[in-house]
Amino acid sequence: MPVAPRDAGRSGRVTLVGAGPGDPGLLTVAGREAIETADVVVADRLAPWEALAWAPPHAEVVDVSKIPFGRSTSQDEINRILVERARAGHHVVRLKGGDSYVFGRGFEEVQACAAAGVPTTVIPGVTSSVAAPELAGVPVTHRGLVQGFTVVSGHVPPGHPDSTVDYAALARSGTTLVVLMGVRTLPAIAEALVEGGLDGATPCALVADASLPSQRSLRTTLAKAASESAAAGIGAPAVAVIGHVAALEP
Amino acid sequence: MPVAPRDAGRSGRVTLVGAGPGDPGLLTVAGREAIETADVVVADRLAPWEALAWAPPHAEVVDVSKIPFGRSTSQDEINRILVERARAGHHVVRLKGGDSYVFGRGFEEVQACAAAGVPTTVIPGVTSSVAAPELAGVPVTHRGLVQGFTVVSGHVPPGHPDSTVDYAALARSGTTLVVLMGVRTLPAIAEALVEGGLDGATPCALVADASLPSQRSLRTTLAKAASESAAAGIGAPAVAVIGHVAALEP
Repeated sequence: MPVAPRDAGRSGRVTLVGAGPGDPGLLTVAGREAIETADVVVADRLAPWEALAWAPPHAEVVDVSKIPFGRSTSQDEINRILVERARAGHHVVRLKGGDSYVFGRGFEEVQACAAAGVPTTVIPGVTSSVAAPELAGVPVTHRGLVQGFTVVSGHVPPGHPDSTVDYAALARSGTTLVVLMGVRTLPAIAEALVEGGLDGATPCALVADASLPSQRSLRTTLAKAASESAAAGIGAPAVAVIGHVAALEP
Repeated sequence: MPVAPRDAGRSGRVTLVGAGPGDPGLLTVAGREAIETADVVVADRLAPWEALAWAPPHAEVVDVSKIPFGRSTSQDEINRILVERARAGHHVVRLKGGDSYVFGRGFEEVQACAAAGVPTTVIPGVTSSVAAPELAGVPVTHRGLVQGFTVVSGHVPPGHPDSTVDYAALARSGTTLVVLMGVRTLPAIAEALVEGGLDGATPCALVADASLPSQRSLRTTLAKAASESAAAGIGAPAVAVIGHVAALEP
């Protein structure tokens, strides 16, 4: 779609919008208003594409999930696109799945814009880490049962040199554990938690495509989660929630 | 406000709406639509009262922060109001600050409705645990720095017989730590974390009234957080975020 010319005197800006788990109804009112005033919407794979219908007819849509890997990383290329479009005087909306600061690399984009002198606004979103369990009937906290929850990314597995998470400590923390992007690494995470002292019989729920018509979920245990999720066809993007809350019934 | 009579044939229902940290723009589109079709809105202290302007003129508003303490707990009384209004055939919206399942007692209300045969829908909201740091410029995760975050309630302090959280384990977990409802107990929490091995020089940010015009925040360290927040007049409801992310600058 073509980008309409802007007044030269108007300066551009970037608004990061956390778009929630997938259903466009789970965008915020402010997020929707940002899209309605966008000149450019930069969206990726996990963003709810139906929400683009709220953009003005002149708005350009950039699908950054299609950036080819090359000399620069795709994140560098996304940063470049945000800065370039804003410098051209446009209101650029960066539409991200979930919340921009929960494994969203949103702060990297804010830093890149700041380095280029481009003003940014961040509109928080509904994070899948809470909403995916919730939509499957699992509260991450429950009075008298658990007073906290921990959210980790399974993108970097336990024991990997880049991992900053102490899974043995998490096993003893007494908090509900939510794993995002953990479908591939769930066996290793379950093993690390059991080695850390968490009972393999601890309840575990898995939720795929939360909030979408294709949402499906499974209740199992930590020890059986990896094999049962594979058998049930629960693939990425899925959320695992581990703790006694995963056995609660309404 | 009076409650309009309903068709006897129409059955009631309850919709729990997570209303976000305070700015009505941070309600979801679906949450706003639920309010627009409400016969009754049951709201408490942390809900954004401006959002009640979206309710139909006939809608009854019940302010449950004003329930007097008596023979029943206020939560029992809230459950009773939800069930009674729904059984009268009304669409009851339960408007809660943040997300209904993050220390919101939302699941207790769902259970009470289920026990009474009242159908419920839960619309996830923007949780203050992520949004309050975000609106103060602090991402709860950041690539290369931290791959997880833990959210705890400070309502029950460390060492209290009812506490289910192992603060020594959290001190070693490698995750960002977010404390909600912790203004009063922050000294005890900081002490427990330092005893558990967390460096008192760990960066800490405090955010009060996130998303409201009165929002204010402070960057300090874990060791100095309690005294500096008191000096800066940061009172409840405030959010503390502890970890290296609290020292990031755009």
